[in-house]
Amino acid sequence: LRIDDLDLDGSGARVDELADQGAAVLTPAHQFPLGMALAAQRRNQAVAWARSSGGLLVEDDYDGEFRYDRAALGAMQALAPDQVAFAGTASKSLAPGLRLSWLVVPPAWLDDVVEAKRLADRFTGVFDQLALADLIDSGGYDRHIRRCRLVYRRRRDRLVAALARRAPDVTVAGLAAGLHALLELPARLLEVDAVRGAGARGLAVEGLSAYAVAPSETRSALVVGYATPPEHAFTTALARLCAALAA
Amino acid sequence: LRIDDLDLDGSGARVDELADQGAAVLTPAHQFPLGMALAAQRRNQAVAWARSSGGLLVEDDYDGEFRYDRAALGAMQALAPDQVAFAGTASKSLAPGLRLSWLVVPPAWLDDVVEAKRLADRFTGVFDQLALADLIDSGGYDRHIRRCRLVYRRRRDRLVAALARRAPDVTVAGLAAGLHALLELPARLLEVDAVRGAGARGLAVEGLSAYAVAPSETRSALVVGYATPPEHAFTTALARLCAALAA
Repeated sequence: LRIDDLDLDGSGARVDELADQGAAVLTPAHQFPLGMALAAQRRNQAVAWARSSGGLLVEDDYDGEFRYDRAALGAMQALAPDQVAFAGTASKSLAPGLRLSWLVVPPAWLDDVVEAKRLADRFTGVFDQLALADLIDSGGYDRHIRRCRLVYRRRRDRLVAALARRAPDVTVAGLAAGLHALLELPARLLEVDAVRGAGARGLAVEGLSAYAVAPSETRSALVVGYATPPEHAFTTALARLCAALAA
Repeated sequence: LRIDDLDLDGSGARVDELADQGAAVLTPAHQFPLGMALAAQRRNQAVAWARSSGGLLVEDDYDGEFRYDRAALGAMQALAPDQVAFAGTASKSLAPGLRLSWLVVPPAWLDDVVEAKRLADRFTGVFDQLALADLIDSGGYDRHIRRCRLVYRRRRDRLVAALARRAPDVTVAGLAAGLHALLELPARLLEVDAVRGAGARGLAVEGLSAYAVAPSETRSALVVGYATPPEHAFTTALARLCAALAA
Protein backbone atom coordinates (compact mmCIF):
# COMPACT_ATOMS: atom_id res chain seq x y z
CA LEU A 1 0.00 0.00 0.00
CA ARG A 2 1.12 3.53 -0.65
CA ILE A 3 1.31 5.56 2.56
CA ASP A 4 0.91 9.34 2.47
CA ASP A 5 1.75 11.49 5.47
CA LEU A 6 -0.65 14.30 6.26
CA ASP A 7 0.84 17.65 7.19
CA LEU A 8 0.15 19.02 10.65
CA ASP A 9 -0.69 22.45 11.99
CA GLY A 10 -2.04 23.75 15.28
CA SER A 11 -5.45 22.19 14.60
CA GLY A 12 -3.98 18.75 13.97
CA ALA A 13 -3.76 16.72 10.78
CA ARG A 14 -4.50 18.57 7.54
CA VAL A 15 -7.40 16.35 6.57
CA ASP A 16 -8.15 18.68 3.65
CA GLU A 17 -5.19 16.93 1.96
CA LEU A 18 -7.18 13.68 1.83
CA ALA A 19 -8.21 12.68 -1.67
CA ASP A 20 -8.37 9.13 -3.02
CA GLN A 21 -6.32 7.41 -0.34
CA GLY A 22 -9.04 4.89 0.47
CA ALA A 23 -8.31 4.96 4.18
CA ALA A 24 -7.04 7.47 6.72
CA VAL A 25 -5.75 6.92 10.25
CA LEU A 26 -6.22 9.80 12.71
CA THR A 27 -5.47 10.18 16.43
CA PRO A 28 -7.97 12.93 17.31
CA ALA A 29 -7.33 13.06 21.06
CA HIS A 30 -3.60 13.63 20.80
CA GLN A 31 -1.16 13.68 17.94
CA PHE A 32 2.06 11.88 18.76
CA PRO A 33 4.62 13.35 19.19
CA LEU A 34 3.47 16.94 18.67
CA GLY A 35 0.57 16.62 21.09
CA MET A 36 -2.18 18.74 19.50
CA ALA A 37 -5.78 17.57 19.38
CA LEU A 38 -7.72 17.39 16.13
CA ALA A 39 -9.97 20.45 16.01
CA ALA A 40 -13.74 19.93 15.86
CA GLN A 41 -13.91 21.38 12.37
CA ARG A 42 -11.22 18.97 11.17
CA ARG A 43 -13.18 16.07 12.60
CA ASN A 44 -16.20 17.11 10.61
CA GLN A 45 -14.04 17.54 7.52
CA ALA A 46 -12.60 14.05 7.96
CA VAL A 47 -16.06 12.51 8.31
CA ALA A 48 -17.23 14.40 5.23
CA TRP A 49 -14.23 13.06 3.31
CA ALA A 50 -15.08 9.49 4.35
CA ARG A 51 -18.73 9.95 3.35
CA SER A 52 -18.06 11.48 -0.03
CA SER A 53 -15.08 9.32 -1.04
CA GLY A 54 -16.34 6.06 0.47
CA GLY A 55 -13.01 5.84 2.28
CA LEU A 56 -12.48 4.20 5.67
CA LEU A 57 -11.61 6.49 8.56
CA VAL A 58 -9.72 4.83 11.41
CA GLU A 59 -10.18 6.82 14.61
CA ASP A 60 -7.37 5.74 16.91
CA ASP A 61 -8.57 7.06 20.26
CA TYR A 62 -5.11 6.66 21.73
CA ASP A 63 -4.81 8.83 24.90
CA GLY A 64 -8.54 9.60 24.64
CA GLU A 65 -8.98 8.90 28.37
CA PHE A 66 -6.43 11.54 29.33
CA ARG A 67 -7.89 14.89 28.35
CA TYR A 68 -7.20 17.58 30.92
CA ASP A 69 -8.33 21.06 30.04
CA ARG A 70 -11.36 20.76 27.86
CA ALA A 71 -14.62 18.89 27.60
CA ALA A 72 -14.38 15.48 25.98
CA LEU A 73 -15.27 15.56 22.31
CA GLY A 74 -17.58 12.92 20.94
CA ALA A 75 -16.12 10.19 18.78
CA MET A 76 -16.13 10.66 15.00
CA GLN A 77 -17.37 7.08 14.90
CA ALA A 78 -20.70 8.22 16.38
CA LEU A 79 -21.10 10.69 13.51
CA ALA A 80 -20.59 8.10 10.80
CA PRO A 81 -20.65 4.52 12.11
CA ASP A 82 -20.65 3.14 8.57
CA GLN A 83 -17.46 5.03 7.62
CA VAL A 84 -15.42 5.17 10.82
CA ALA A 85 -13.62 2.36 12.68
CA PHE A 86 -12.96 3.32 16.29
CA ALA A 87 -9.90 1.90 18.07
CA GLY A 88 -9.18 2.08 21.79
CA THR A 89 -6.57 0.45 23.98
CA ALA A 90 -5.81 -0.48 27.58
CA SER A 91 -2.08 0.04 26.89
CA LYS A 92 -2.14 3.58 28.31
CA SER A 93 -4.86 3.21 30.92
CA LEU A 94 -3.70 -0.12 32.41
CA ALA A 95 -0.49 -1.52 30.92
CA PRO A 96 0.96 -2.11 27.45
CA GLY A 97 1.90 -5.62 28.61
CA LEU A 98 -1.79 -6.55 28.73
CA ARG A 99 -2.07 -6.41 24.90
CA LEU A 100 -5.76 -5.53 25.08
CA SER A 101 -7.42 -3.13 22.70
CA TRP A 102 -10.73 -2.90 20.94
CA LEU A 103 -12.23 -1.95 17.60
CA VAL A 104 -15.69 -0.74 16.66
CA VAL A 105 -15.90 -1.68 13.00
CA PRO A 106 -18.33 -0.48 10.31
CA PRO A 107 -20.78 -3.32 9.62
CA ALA A 108 -19.58 -3.73 6.03
CA TRP A 109 -16.01 -4.36 7.26
CA LEU A 110 -16.81 -6.60 10.21
CA ASP A 111 -16.56 -10.03 8.58
CA ASP A 112 -13.22 -9.21 6.93
CA VAL A 113 -11.76 -7.80 10.16
CA VAL A 114 -12.89 -10.83 12.16
CA GLU A 115 -11.36 -13.15 9.55
CA ALA A 116 -8.07 -11.20 9.54
CA LYS A 117 -7.91 -11.47 13.33
CA ARG A 118 -8.61 -15.21 13.13
CA LEU A 119 -5.79 -15.69 10.64
CA ALA A 120 -3.40 -13.54 12.70
CA ASP A 121 -3.74 -15.24 16.08
CA ARG A 122 -7.16 -16.93 16.19
CA PHE A 123 -8.23 -14.88 19.23
CA THR A 124 -6.86 -12.88 22.15
CA GLY A 125 -6.36 -14.49 25.54
CA VAL A 126 -9.71 -14.80 27.27
CA PHE A 127 -8.55 -14.57 30.90
CA ASP A 128 -7.28 -11.00 30.53
CA GLN A 129 -10.44 -10.11 28.60
CA LEU A 130 -12.66 -11.54 31.34
CA ALA A 131 -10.70 -9.67 34.02
CA LEU A 132 -11.04 -6.40 32.09
CA ALA A 133 -14.76 -7.00 31.54
CA ASP A 134 -15.17 -7.49 35.30
CA LEU A 135 -13.18 -4.33 35.99
CA ILE A 136 -15.38 -2.33 33.60
CA ASP A 137 -18.66 -3.81 34.91
CA SER A 138 -17.72 -3.08 38.52
CA GLY A 139 -17.00 0.58 37.77
CA GLY A 140 -13.39 0.03 38.88
CA TYR A 141 -12.02 0.86 35.43
CA ASP A 142 -13.73 4.28 35.39
CA ARG A 143 -12.52 5.02 38.92
CA HIS A 144 -9.00 4.04 37.90
CA ILE A 145 -9.09 6.35 34.87
CA ARG A 146 -10.34 9.28 36.95
CA ARG A 147 -7.62 8.72 39.55
CA CYS A 148 -4.90 8.43 36.88
CA ARG A 149 -6.16 11.53 35.07
CA LEU A 150 -5.74 13.50 38.28
CA VAL A 151 -2.27 12.09 38.98
CA TYR A 152 -1.03 12.73 35.44
CA ARG A 153 -2.53 16.21 35.32
CA ARG A 154 -0.67 17.10 38.53
CA ARG A 155 2.56 15.76 37.09
CA ARG A 156 2.01 17.77 33.93
CA ASP A 157 1.40 20.94 35.99
CA ARG A 158 4.54 20.30 38.05
CA LEU A 159 6.55 19.81 34.86
CA VAL A 160 5.32 23.12 33.44
CA ALA A 161 5.94 25.01 36.73
CA ALA A 162 9.43 23.55 37.21
CA LEU A 163 10.50 24.40 33.67
CA ALA A 164 9.09 27.94 34.00
CA ARG A 165 11.39 28.45 37.00
CA ARG A 166 14.52 26.63 35.85
CA ALA A 167 14.45 26.87 32.05
CA PRO A 168 11.97 29.61 31.15
CA ASP A 169 13.16 29.78 27.53
CA VAL A 170 11.92 26.22 26.94
CA THR A 171 8.39 26.24 25.46
CA VAL A 172 6.10 23.44 26.61
CA ALA A 173 3.49 22.28 24.10
CA GLY A 174 1.05 19.44 23.46
CA LEU A 175 -0.34 19.52 26.97
CA ALA A 176 -4.09 19.32 26.53
CA ALA A 177 -4.14 15.54 26.68
CA GLY A 178 -2.03 12.45 26.88
CA LEU A 179 1.00 11.34 28.84
CA HIS A 180 3.80 13.28 27.20
CA ALA A 181 4.80 16.87 26.49
CA LEU A 182 6.80 18.49 23.74
CA LEU A 183 9.60 20.74 25.04
CA GLU A 184 10.68 23.17 22.33
CA LEU A 185 14.30 24.12 22.86
CA PRO A 186 15.87 27.59 22.66
CA ALA A 187 18.71 28.28 20.25
CA ARG A 188 21.33 27.89 23.01
CA LEU A 189 20.55 24.19 23.31
CA LEU A 190 20.97 21.69 20.47
CA GLU A 191 18.47 18.82 20.52
CA VAL A 192 21.22 16.22 20.41
CA ASP A 193 22.94 17.84 23.41
CA ALA A 194 19.69 18.02 25.37
CA VAL A 195 19.02 14.30 24.75
CA ARG A 196 22.61 13.50 25.76
CA GLY A 197 22.43 15.71 28.87
CA ALA A 198 19.21 14.06 30.01
CA GLY A 199 20.67 10.63 29.30
CA ALA A 200 23.77 11.45 31.38
CA ARG A 201 21.36 12.14 34.27
CA GLY A 202 19.63 8.78 33.85
CA LEU A 203 16.60 10.03 31.88
CA ALA A 204 15.43 8.35 28.70
CA VAL A 205 13.91 11.13 26.61
CA GLU A 206 13.85 11.37 22.84
CA GLY A 207 14.46 14.16 20.39
CA LEU A 208 11.63 15.18 18.09
CA SER A 209 13.84 14.43 15.06
CA ALA A 210 13.64 10.72 15.95
CA TYR A 211 9.99 10.82 14.85
CA ALA A 212 10.31 13.08 11.85
CA VAL A 213 9.43 12.10 8.30
CA ALA A 214 11.94 14.74 7.15
CA PRO A 215 14.29 15.25 10.14
CA SER A 216 15.89 18.40 8.77
CA GLU A 217 12.56 20.24 8.84
CA THR A 218 11.61 19.64 12.48
CA ARG A 219 11.86 22.06 15.32
CA SER A 220 14.48 21.33 17.95
CA ALA A 221 12.50 19.69 20.75
CA LEU A 222 12.33 16.91 23.31
CA VAL A 223 9.48 14.40 23.64
CA VAL A 224 9.06 13.82 27.38
CA GLY A 225 6.74 11.19 28.84
CA TYR A 226 5.75 12.25 32.35
CA ALA A 227 3.66 9.18 33.24
CA THR A 228 6.54 6.71 33.18
CA PRO A 229 8.51 7.26 36.42
CA PRO A 230 7.00 5.61 39.50
CA GLU A 231 5.49 8.06 41.98
CA HIS A 232 8.49 8.05 44.36
CA ALA A 233 10.90 8.81 41.48
CA PHE A 234 9.01 11.63 39.79
CA THR A 235 10.40 14.53 41.85
CA THR A 236 13.98 13.42 41.24
CA ALA A 237 13.34 12.84 37.54
CA LEU A 238 11.85 16.33 37.22
CA ALA A 239 14.82 17.94 38.98
CA ARG A 240 17.23 16.10 36.68
CA LEU A 241 15.32 17.15 33.58
CA CYS A 242 15.45 20.79 34.71
CA ALA A 243 19.17 20.50 35.44
CA ALA A 244 19.75 19.14 31.93
CA LEU A 245 17.81 22.01 30.30
CA ALA A 246 18.71 24.96 32.57
CA ALA A 247 20.68 27.81 31.03
CA LEU B 1 3.03 -20.81 -1.09
CA ARG B 2 2.28 -24.17 -2.61
CA ILE B 3 1.13 -26.65 0.03
CA ASP B 4 1.65 -30.38 -0.50
CA ASP B 5 -0.06 -32.94 1.72
CA LEU B 6 2.05 -35.91 2.79
CA ASP B 7 0.42 -39.32 2.68
CA LEU B 8 0.02 -41.21 5.95
CA ASP B 9 0.49 -44.82 6.94
CA GLY B 10 0.75 -46.63 10.27
CA SER B 11 4.16 -45.06 10.93
CA GLY B 12 2.86 -41.53 10.42
CA ALA B 13 3.64 -39.05 7.66
CA ARG B 14 5.39 -40.41 4.56
CA VAL B 15 8.40 -38.13 4.91
CA ASP B 16 10.11 -40.01 2.05
CA GLU B 17 7.77 -37.94 -0.18
CA LEU B 18 9.61 -34.77 0.81
CA ALA B 19 11.70 -33.27 -1.98
CA ASP B 20 12.19 -29.56 -2.67
CA GLN B 21 9.31 -28.23 -0.55
CA GLY B 22 11.57 -25.92 1.45
CA ALA B 23 9.72 -26.53 4.69
CA ALA B 24 7.78 -29.36 6.29
CA VAL B 25 5.42 -29.33 9.27
CA LEU B 26 5.16 -32.56 11.28
CA THR B 27 3.27 -33.48 14.46
CA PRO B 28 5.43 -36.38 15.66
CA ALA B 29 3.65 -37.04 18.96
CA HIS B 30 0.23 -37.48 17.45
CA GLN B 31 -1.18 -37.04 13.99
CA PHE B 32 -4.54 -35.30 14.02
CA PRO B 33 -7.06 -36.77 13.38
CA LEU B 34 -5.71 -40.28 12.70
CA GLY B 35 -3.74 -40.38 15.94
CA MET B 36 -0.59 -42.31 15.00
CA ALA B 37 2.85 -41.23 16.21
CA LEU B 38 5.70 -40.60 13.81
CA ALA B 39 7.95 -43.68 13.93
CA ALA B 40 11.56 -43.24 15.08
CA GLN B 41 12.88 -44.14 11.65
CA ARG B 42 10.63 -41.53 10.03
CA ARG B 43 11.96 -38.89 12.44
CA ASN B 44 15.50 -39.71 11.37
CA GLN B 45 14.43 -39.60 7.74
CA ALA B 46 12.83 -36.19 8.21
CA VAL B 47 15.94 -34.80 9.87
CA ALA B 48 18.09 -36.24 7.08
CA TRP B 49 15.82 -34.54 4.52
CA ALA B 50 16.20 -31.18 6.30
CA ARG B 51 19.99 -31.58 6.47
CA SER B 52 20.48 -32.56 2.85
CA SER B 53 17.91 -30.20 1.30
CA GLY B 54 18.53 -27.24 3.60
CA GLY B 55 14.77 -27.21 4.28
CA LEU B 56 13.17 -26.11 7.52
CA LEU B 57 11.50 -28.79 9.60
CA VAL B 58 8.75 -27.53 11.92
CA GLU B 59 8.24 -30.01 14.77
CA ASP B 60 4.82 -29.21 16.18
CA ASP B 61 4.92 -31.05 19.51
CA TYR B 62 1.17 -30.78 19.82
CA ASP B 63 -0.07 -33.39 22.37
CA GLY B 64 3.58 -34.19 23.22
CA GLU B 65 2.80 -34.06 26.95
CA PHE B 66 0.14 -36.76 26.65
CA ARG B 67 1.92 -39.97 25.67
CA TYR B 68 0.52 -42.99 27.47
CA ASP B 69 1.95 -46.33 26.48
CA ARG B 70 5.53 -45.76 25.43
CA ALA B 71 8.64 -43.95 26.51
CA ALA B 72 8.82 -40.32 25.43
CA LEU B 73 10.85 -39.92 22.25
CA GLY B 74 13.42 -37.16 22.12
CA ALA B 75 12.63 -34.09 20.04
CA MET B 76 13.87 -33.99 16.43
CA GLN B 77 14.96 -30.47 17.28
CA ALA B 78 17.68 -31.87 19.55
CA LEU B 79 19.05 -33.91 16.62
CA ALA B 80 19.35 -30.92 14.29
CA PRO B 81 18.89 -27.58 16.08
CA ASP B 82 19.99 -25.69 12.96
CA GLN B 83 17.31 -27.33 10.79
CA VAL B 84 14.37 -27.89 13.13
CA ALA B 85 11.99 -25.36 14.71
CA PHE B 86 10.25 -26.85 17.74
CA ALA B 87 6.74 -25.65 18.64
CA GLY B 88 4.88 -26.37 21.87
CA THR B 89 1.66 -25.02 23.34
CA ALA B 90 -0.22 -24.62 26.60
CA SER B 91 -3.52 -24.93 24.71
CA LYS B 92 -3.82 -28.65 25.49
CA SER B 93 -2.08 -28.74 28.88
CA LEU B 94 -3.73 -25.66 30.41
CA ALA B 95 -6.35 -23.98 28.20
CA PRO B 96 -6.64 -22.82 24.58
CA GLY B 97 -8.01 -19.51 25.90
CA LEU B 98 -4.57 -18.69 27.32
CA ARG B 99 -3.11 -18.27 23.81
CA LEU B 100 0.38 -19.24 25.01
CA SER B 101 2.78 -21.30 22.96
CA TRP B 102 6.49 -21.35 22.32
CA LEU B 103 8.99 -21.82 19.51
CA VAL B 104 12.60 -22.95 19.56
CA VAL B 105 13.93 -21.47 16.35
CA PRO B 106 17.13 -22.31 14.43
CA PRO B 107 19.60 -19.44 14.98
CA ALA B 108 19.59 -18.48 11.30
CA TRP B 109 15.80 -17.97 11.41
CA LEU B 110 15.56 -16.23 14.76
CA ASP B 111 15.74 -12.57 13.67
CA ASP B 112 13.12 -13.06 10.95
CA VAL B 113 10.76 -14.91 13.29
CA VAL B 114 11.10 -12.23 15.98
CA GLU B 115 10.41 -9.53 13.39
CA ALA B 116 7.36 -11.38 12.04
CA LYS B 117 5.99 -11.68 15.58
CA ARG B 118 6.63 -7.98 16.17
CA LEU B 119 4.72 -7.05 13.03
CA ALA B 120 1.88 -9.44 13.87
CA ASP B 121 1.08 -8.26 17.40
CA ARG B 122 4.24 -6.67 18.86
CA PHE B 123 4.35 -9.20 21.71
CA THR B 124 2.18 -11.57 23.72
CA GLY B 125 0.57 -10.49 26.99
CA VAL B 126 3.20 -10.53 29.73
CA PHE B 127 0.95 -11.25 32.70
CA ASP B 128 -0.04 -14.70 31.42
CA GLN B 129 3.59 -15.36 30.48
CA LEU B 130 4.79 -14.42 33.98
CA ALA B 131 2.12 -16.61 35.58
CA LEU B 132 3.13 -19.57 33.37
CA ALA B 133 6.84 -18.98 34.15
CA ASP B 134 6.02 -19.08 37.87
CA LEU B 135 3.98 -22.25 37.41
CA ILE B 136 6.89 -23.91 35.56
CA ASP B 137 9.54 -22.73 38.05
CA SER B 138 7.52 -23.96 41.02
CA GLY B 139 7.16 -27.46 39.56
CA GLY B 140 3.40 -26.99 39.52
CA TYR B 141 3.20 -27.26 35.73
CA ASP B 142 4.93 -30.67 35.73
CA ARG B 143 2.68 -31.91 38.53
CA HIS B 144 -0.37 -30.71 36.61
CA ILE B 145 0.76 -32.53 33.44
CA ARG B 146 1.35 -35.78 35.36
CA ARG B 147 -2.05 -35.54 37.00
CA CYS B 148 -3.80 -34.80 33.69
CA ARG B 149 -1.95 -37.61 31.93
CA LEU B 150 -3.31 -40.05 34.50
CA VAL B 151 -6.85 -38.66 34.28
CA TYR B 152 -6.89 -38.72 30.47
CA ARG B 153 -5.36 -42.19 30.33
CA ARG B 154 -8.11 -43.49 32.60
CA ARG B 155 -10.74 -41.87 30.42
CA ARG B 156 -9.18 -43.41 27.35
CA ASP B 157 -9.18 -46.86 28.98
CA ARG B 158 -12.81 -46.46 30.02
CA LEU B 159 -13.73 -45.44 26.46
CA VAL B 160 -12.03 -48.54 25.03
CA ALA B 161 -13.60 -50.86 27.61
CA ALA B 162 -17.09 -49.41 27.19
CA LEU B 163 -16.97 -49.69 23.40
CA ALA B 164 -15.66 -53.27 23.62
CA ARG B 165 -18.78 -54.17 25.62
CA ARG B 166 -21.43 -52.12 23.83
CA ALA B 167 -20.13 -51.78 20.26
CA PRO B 168 -17.44 -54.43 19.78
CA ASP B 169 -17.41 -54.03 16.00
CA VAL B 170 -16.13 -50.44 16.37
CA THR B 171 -12.33 -50.34 16.11
CA VAL B 172 -10.59 -47.79 18.35
CA ALA B 173 -7.32 -46.35 16.99
CA GLY B 174 -4.88 -43.51 17.59
CA LEU B 175 -4.68 -44.15 21.31
CA ALA B 176 -0.98 -43.96 22.12
CA ALA B 177 -1.08 -40.25 22.84
CA GLY B 178 -3.25 -37.18 22.81
CA LEU B 179 -6.76 -36.32 23.86
CA HIS B 180 -8.83 -37.92 21.16
CA ALA B 181 -9.47 -41.34 19.63
CA LEU B 182 -10.45 -42.47 16.16
CA LEU B 183 -13.46 -44.81 16.16
CA GLU B 184 -13.58 -46.78 12.90
CA LEU B 185 -17.13 -47.69 12.12
CA PRO B 186 -18.47 -51.05 10.92
CA ALA B 187 -20.40 -51.30 7.65
CA ARG B 188 -23.77 -51.27 9.47
CA LEU B 189 -23.19 -47.67 10.55
CA LEU B 190 -22.77 -44.74 8.13
CA GLU B 191 -20.47 -41.98 9.40
CA VAL B 192 -23.12 -39.32 8.82
CA ASP B 193 -25.65 -41.35 10.84
CA ALA B 194 -23.18 -41.88 13.69
CA VAL B 195 -22.46 -38.14 13.88
CA ARG B 196 -26.18 -37.41 13.80
CA GLY B 197 -26.95 -40.06 16.42
CA ALA B 198 -24.31 -38.69 18.77
CA GLY B 199 -25.56 -35.16 18.15
CA ALA B 200 -29.13 -36.19 19.00
CA ARG B 201 -27.76 -37.38 22.37
CA GLY B 202 -26.05 -34.04 23.03
CA LEU B 203 -22.53 -35.07 21.96
CA ALA B 204 -20.44 -32.97 19.59
CA VAL B 205 -18.27 -35.45 17.70
CA GLU B 206 -17.02 -35.13 14.15
CA GLY B 207 -16.75 -37.49 11.26
CA LEU B 208 -13.32 -38.22 9.86
CA SER B 209 -14.46 -36.98 6.44
CA ALA B 210 -14.65 -33.44 7.87
CA TYR B 211 -10.84 -33.47 7.99
CA ALA B 212 -10.13 -35.27 4.75
CA VAL B 213 -8.19 -33.78 1.85
CA ALA B 214 -10.14 -36.15 -0.42
CA PRO B 215 -13.31 -37.04 1.55
CA SER B 216 -14.30 -39.92 -0.70
CA GLU B 217 -11.13 -41.81 0.15
CA THR B 218 -11.38 -41.78 3.94
CA ARG B 219 -12.46 -44.59 6.16
CA SER B 220 -15.81 -44.21 7.88
CA ALA B 221 -14.86 -43.06 11.40
CA LEU B 222 -15.59 -40.69 14.25
CA VAL B 223 -13.06 -38.35 15.85
CA VAL B 224 -13.86 -38.35 19.57
CA GLY B 225 -12.19 -36.03 22.07
CA TYR B 226 -12.34 -37.63 25.51
CA ALA B 227 -10.72 -34.78 27.47
CA THR B 228 -13.48 -32.26 26.87
CA PRO B 229 -16.37 -33.23 29.20
CA PRO B 230 -15.95 -32.11 32.80
CA GLU B 231 -15.26 -34.94 35.24
CA HIS B 232 -18.84 -35.20 36.51
CA ALA B 233 -20.22 -35.46 32.96
CA PHE B 234 -17.81 -38.05 31.54
CA THR B 235 -19.72 -41.18 32.59
CA THR B 236 -22.93 -39.89 31.05
CA ALA B 237 -21.17 -38.78 27.87
CA LEU B 238 -19.58 -42.21 27.52
CA ALA B 239 -22.92 -44.00 27.99
CA ARG B 240 -24.51 -41.76 25.35
CA LEU B 241 -21.70 -42.39 22.88
CA CYS B 242 -22.08 -46.15 23.36
CA ALA B 243 -25.84 -45.87 22.89
CA ALA B 244 -25.30 -43.98 19.63
CA LEU B 245 -22.89 -46.62 18.29
CA ALA B 246 -24.38 -49.86 19.66
CA ALA B 247 -25.71 -52.37 17.15
